[in-house]
Amino acid sequence: MTEQTELNFEGFSCPVPLPDITLDRIVLGHGSGGRMSHNLVCRIFLPDLQNPALNRMDDGAVLSLPGGNGRLVMSTDAHVVQPLFFPGGDIGRLAVCGTVNDLAMMGARPLWLSAAFVLEEGLPIETLQQVVRSMQEAAHEAQVHVVSGDTKVVERGKADGLYIATAGVGWLPEGINISGTNARPGDVVLVSGTMGDHGIAVLSEREGLGFETELKSDVAPLNGLVAAMLEAAPGAIHTLRDPTRGGLATTLNEIAMQSGVSIELEEERIPLRPAVRSACEMLGFDPLYVANEGKLVACVAPEAADDVLAAMKAHPYGRDAAIIGRVGEGPSGQVTIRTPIGGTRVLDMLSGEMLPRIC
Amino acid sequence: MTEQTELNFEGFSCPVPLPDITLDRIVLGHGSGGRMSHNLVCRIFLPDLQNPALNRMDDGAVLSLPGGNGRLVMSTDAHVVQPLFFPGGDIGRLAVCGTVNDLAMMGARPLWLSAAFVLEEGLPIETLQQVVRSMQEAAHEAQVHVVSGDTKVVERGKADGLYIATAGVGWLPEGINISGTNARPGDVVLVSGTMGDHGIAVLSEREGLGFETELKSDVAPLNGLVAAMLEAAPGAIHTLRDPTRGGLATTLNEIAMQSGVSIELEEERIPLRPAVRSACEMLGFDPLYVANEGKLVACVAPEAADDVLAAMKAHPYGRDAAIIGRVGEGPSGQVTIRTPIGGTRVLDMLSGEMLPRIC
Repeated sequence: MTEQTELNFEGFSCPVPLPDITLDRIVLGHGSGGRMSHNLVCRIFLPDLQNPALNRMDDGAVLSLPGGNGRLVMSTDAHVVQPLFFPGGDIGRLAVCGTVNDLAMMGARPLWLSAAFVLEEGLPIETLQQVVRSMQEAAHEAQVHVVSGDTKVVERGKADGLYIATAGVGWLPEGINISGTNARPGDVVLVSGTMGDHGIAVLSEREGLGFETELKSDVAPLNGLVAAMLEAAPGAIHTLRDPTRGGLATTLNEIAMQSGVSIELEEERIPLRPAVRSACEMLGFDPLYVANEGKLVACVAPEAADDVLAAMKAHPYGRDAAIIGRVGEGPSGQVTIRTPIGGTRVLDMLSGEMLPRIC
Repeated sequence: MTEQTELNFEGFSCPVPLPDITLDRIVLGHGSGGRMSHNLVCRIFLPDLQNPALNRMDDGAVLSLPGGNGRLVMSTDAHVVQPLFFPGGDIGRLAVCGTVNDLAMMGARPLWLSAAFVLEEGLPIETLQQVVRSMQEAAHEAQVHVVSGDTKVVERGKADGLYIATAGVGWLPEGINISGTNARPGDVVLVSGTMGDHGIAVLSEREGLGFETELKSDVAPLNGLVAAMLEAAPGAIHTLRDPTRGGLATTLNEIAMQSGVSIELEEERIPLRPAVRSACEMLGFDPLYVANEGKLVACVAPEAADDVLAAMKAHPYGRDAAIIGRVGEGPSGQVTIRTPIGGTRVLDMLSGEMLPRIC
């Protein structure tokens, strides 16, 4: 069924047109980060839990402290990546960076994390120790503290080694207003580096594909990069988002829908590692739908784009940054990509599941 | 091996004496909330993640906002209860109340929650809908908002229906200083009601025991009760804690160790439902080790104890409140209980696992 329906309640309008799919059970696609995930959120979670902070559907919720004591951002992520260790990182580094990045994408300064563990009976304690150590290294790098934790244990066969849910709180300095709803026609679209590294690295490790070339996850905390960008052009950065599950294509579709704009990309400007390109060709994946865990996409006022790009390139996590496209007037929610031979195609949101348990 | 070792690093001293048990794999007992859980936290988590907020090992971390903008409390819990629905509640209500209560036990006013879901492929969407609705009802009752969420899906057989990790942030008003480290000799020990209701209700449902009498979980948000107590006797409430996993006995052992005091209880003063008492007798459980999810224990300055008790009894969640004992000079960490026939026995911390997956 392809009928598109819109879901509205008390001032909220789901930004993603929902295919009228009625499933009665959870399938892997509900965890894809794409259209099925949005469907689940809009149909099951939002109608009951709705509130202004949640309804905005940004990477983090902007919260005003009592008594005019400033603003916070809060965010959470569950991490179920398989395998637990992969080239370039592990579930511990991922759990810290995932939440740090969600806070950073709102322009917040990440301060504190919590971590809740679900451990499977039989997990080697040495494995847990390595994961915790890796969390600490990532937290140290991101200059955040893990201030609260909880551990539950389930019977053998009721988890897959371990799952980690992190939540984070950041401080939102005055005057910062970054949101998926703020992209404006004329804005320049930038990415901080190569696309698809994380997804392909995890897949390659999981399936034992043994590509000869070096494929490594990009998992990294991006708050330092964001701070450098904000310093370079305060007020000019309208939207920031980390293209994780669903990849760049899905993230840009979300932004285009939330902001009611169109986005046009130049395919040849999108940075790709040759190894990722070859792996994707071999496996039949489009790298624009593959998850990243240490990259961001930004919509920036055109007059500030060069300054922001220079600031990104000067940062270790933005060395391969590039301008990849532009925000247009519409049609609202449409993302198109111009191919090197001059054609143009529509880049839709990820529909079902491509790479389960990638984060 | 029963040798007791202490773990110390950079100003931190693990409050729980650690049995020198070297296991190389996670067992269910690591999730008990008792001595094995403390062992895991002190040996694996704290040495790497240590920071002042985490090291205090309270129910929530007290955090100072930048620029002197006040204090927050942050807390997290993973919820893996089995079955998902039980008399008196479900995993959704539990997930909200568990985190709300951790914040309330620090004297904070709970404001915002995040919720991260791990869903098992095949979960009926109707089940998820019921759980989300129940979360919303509990959040409404507790006057908090779920402001951020995340959903991951794992393959069939890699979870048990669903797990929910919640994190919470609360506002800590000036002048409030409630901690497991603050119990003082002479303090009066109060509980807000009957002990063991949650654990026995879940067990009874899980095992299909079909007790004829009505056994219901007490799962409830306690922030309203705490607010009433604080209003009745500001400054007189030294320690608050909700006796969840490991029950009242384990919680009082933690407080006695953290505060370096002893605690003496009067067994006949501890409120128990007759149905819970009979079930425990039949099953061979000590109700003082059985989990509660809607009860608190408080250490209160003696001169304010009657006022606090009256305030508790006037609140719907404190109707069966009672004074159950007193804090003594020491020996540090010792909890004793006087039986109705005049004997005294030591009430130790829960050691291994009694009722797995009770919350």
